[in-house]
Amino acid sequence: MPSPFPSFKSKEALQALFRPSSVAVIGASTAPEKLGYQIFKNLLDAGFPGKVHPINPKAPEILGCPCYSNIDAVPDQVDLAVIIIPAPLVADTIRRCGSRGVKGAIVISGGFSETGPEGEVMQEQLVEAAQESKMAVIGPNCQGVNNPHHPLCASWPLLTRRGPVAVISQSGTVGAALMDWASQEELGVSTFVSLGNRADVDEADLIHYFAQDPNTETIAIYMEGVKVAPKFLEAVRQCQKPLVILKAGRTPKGRKAAESHTRSLAGRDEVYEGVFRQFSVHRANDLEQLYDFSKALSYLPRLKGPRLLIVTSSGGSAILATDVAEMTGLDVASLPDQVAQRLREVLPKHCIVGNPLDLTGDATAQMYRQVVEAAASHFDAIALIFGDPIPGASEVVGRDPLQLVIYLGGAEVERQERLLFHRKGIPVFPTPERGIQALSHLL
Amino acid sequence: MPSPFPSFKSKEALQALFRPSSVAVIGASTAPEKLGYQIFKNLLDAGFPGKVHPINPKAPEILGCPCYSNIDAVPDQVDLAVIIIPAPLVADTIRRCGSRGVKGAIVISGGFSETGPEGEVMQEQLVEAAQESKMAVIGPNCQGVNNPHHPLCASWPLLTRRGPVAVISQSGTVGAALMDWASQEELGVSTFVSLGNRADVDEADLIHYFAQDPNTETIAIYMEGVKVAPKFLEAVRQCQKPLVILKAGRTPKGRKAAESHTRSLAGRDEVYEGVFRQFSVHRANDLEQLYDFSKALSYLPRLKGPRLLIVTSSGGSAILATDVAEMTGLDVASLPDQVAQRLREVLPKHCIVGNPLDLTGDATAQMYRQVVEAAASHFDAIALIFGDPIPGASEVVGRDPLQLVIYLGGAEVERQERLLFHRKGIPVFPTPERGIQALSHLL
Repeated sequence: MPSPFPSFKSKEALQALFRPSSVAVIGASTAPEKLGYQIFKNLLDAGFPGKVHPINPKAPEILGCPCYSNIDAVPDQVDLAVIIIPAPLVADTIRRCGSRGVKGAIVISGGFSETGPEGEVMQEQLVEAAQESKMAVIGPNCQGVNNPHHPLCASWPLLTRRGPVAVISQSGTVGAALMDWASQEELGVSTFVSLGNRADVDEADLIHYFAQDPNTETIAIYMEGVKVAPKFLEAVRQCQKPLVILKAGRTPKGRKAAESHTRSLAGRDEVYEGVFRQFSVHRANDLEQLYDFSKALSYLPRLKGPRLLIVTSSGGSAILATDVAEMTGLDVASLPDQVAQRLREVLPKHCIVGNPLDLTGDATAQMYRQVVEAAASHFDAIALIFGDPIPGASEVVGRDPLQLVIYLGGAEVERQERLLFHRKGIPVFPTPERGIQALSHLL
Repeated sequence: MPSPFPSFKSKEALQALFRPSSVAVIGASTAPEKLGYQIFKNLLDAGFPGKVHPINPKAPEILGCPCYSNIDAVPDQVDLAVIIIPAPLVADTIRRCGSRGVKGAIVISGGFSETGPEGEVMQEQLVEAAQESKMAVIGPNCQGVNNPHHPLCASWPLLTRRGPVAVISQSGTVGAALMDWASQEELGVSTFVSLGNRADVDEADLIHYFAQDPNTETIAIYMEGVKVAPKFLEAVRQCQKPLVILKAGRTPKGRKAAESHTRSLAGRDEVYEGVFRQFSVHRANDLEQLYDFSKALSYLPRLKGPRLLIVTSSGGSAILATDVAEMTGLDVASLPDQVAQRLREVLPKHCIVGNPLDLTGDATAQMYRQVVEAAASHFDAIALIFGDPIPGASEVVGRDPLQLVIYLGGAEVERQERLLFHRKGIPVFPTPERGIQALSHLL
């Protein structure tokens, strides 16, 4: 009996793309404004551990590396070809790579199915070439791959920070934005894969792969439509790690734009909603939620129950947090009497002991610790809202029970503390609403 | 017939608070960790144009300024007293200030109605003292006032950037967060007022004042509850400038927290919703919306109609934008045939000419300008999504028709371009969803 869907790409096939021993950049360039230069430079600057060969018939060398006129001229074994040449040349180039033993290709070049019937034909030829050569291909029309754990930055911009989230994106820009936010916050990613037109490797292959990848805790996906529905469903069903998905094309015109962009059926949103519910996929409603939910799910444990204590230096922020908690199924439960009594003894008299617990504007980091110690055993989570420039915040936050950190209104002190928190692997959220919304996904 | 509500504070009374000629800081301190030091230093560092007198009986001088033991000892006329001393001393101090001709006071000190019955009594005494002395009082229990246009930074942290948004906040932290975001983006505010307990000056006085303030284009308000309902309604009714309001305490527990925080009735959310609709108040659902909507309403003109063209280098971002546009009443209308034809002639062949119009990943700033020129007369707004590191973006964006800029996935180039845009007074939004959501408030 034939399989009901194409099988997943093997781990070995995908490792040639994400953990190659050597790389050829076909279409490497000496012109700094060209992607063929930028990607080649990023590979070098990120510190790729093997050999990187530029291929360009017109240049003797690029950035100090001897240049070859074609893949056949490279004297060493090449695992991965990064291809940045005009679309009409790509299929043949893949065939030549295949005959040289290259195992995988990342095709950056656009000009394929996204441009119309001619491009579709070229994309079919690309697929044929890949199948004949038994090569795994990412793209075409994509922003490449970045695995900072290898490191392999066959993408742009150059980002080298390692983290626990695998970012899989049909849109290069959406992926790059997530990468950049993570990098700015010193969080990083496990791997970024820009899928592009998905001529060969698709989102299901990657869910299946990253579900087994030891560097990946959470899988964040931006998608416009599923490529092969039963294969996607099977990948999601098997995946034991949290999946966060932002599905674009929810409205009729958005769906039409998605179908035009990806040349595939985007499908009715209700169908996606049903699937996401069935398989406990965390649905993000916008780009920031995709980022926030992935961050919470990667760095924080799951909640054992809904009981939430909110501790704050900012009464207003705590009210905003309470609203979102109540709307998302968390329980801002009463502070037990004995805890309240104990806290009234140890905290300054002007603190407002309740839930939310307001330490008021002259809160110190130490007061937060006192509250956590007194209340820990009565709550499933404690949201700590630092709403002023409170130094030392990152020194008083632990992990039991779950402690969710929100930091705002603290200017330079806040920016320093956020990085200190992140270096300890404790995520910080920028507003009460975003923090509590993310927390609710740990329920 | 008596007025149905307390009258608004006069312009002169509030100018003593926002544009004083001289300031005394009562409770100025020599200890850098104390607010009495930080606020005094911020006044100096922001460049307050008049005299600033520290009042502290124990210090001979603070930061090089001669210190006085009390307000009576100050030889010059003082317009504004900033008060940071224990609550039990505040009412008497206000009375002494009044008899010395001081016109306004900002009471930073906490320990009043927010702490319980004893504090409530002290707050009543404070109000009596202010009324007897005919002084306008902001606070108590507040984070002060910052008017970078004067400049007067009687608040913290030190922020000096001028902008068109007046920020009025019952929460010091919420206001400080907005101020800090604006400052980081080089946008600034017209004035920041932390209202605190609103013993005297309330949100209605400030709406009334900033509606006439020449430096203010838009009024952004964070509130937990209205102090005097008919006065608030009258202020909102009279205000001709855009009002953006984030009202916390929407859920039962959030409302309870709000009532405890502000010691006033927060009121049912449906009532606020009705009032906001009636008076075309822009309701923000979270802190980022409060910021985004105010930014759009300050820097961009109102839309003449819903017809929106989306131009992008990132197909995915454009789909996300299309979804939000469709959900918020904007119309991602078809590109007229003659415009499409013209653009197919001038743009590279691989660009996808439609709406959204996808310039694809190798878009240049110049291509965006070509699209705007060809399509300008057919749309009410053009959303320009720069979804890659596209240098020169800030040089090609104009104001006719309305051009909404979204920039993401551009790393360092994006950060540079954002500041260049902002220096030209063109606001930049960080995601397609946030940008289009804000745009819909210009309808």
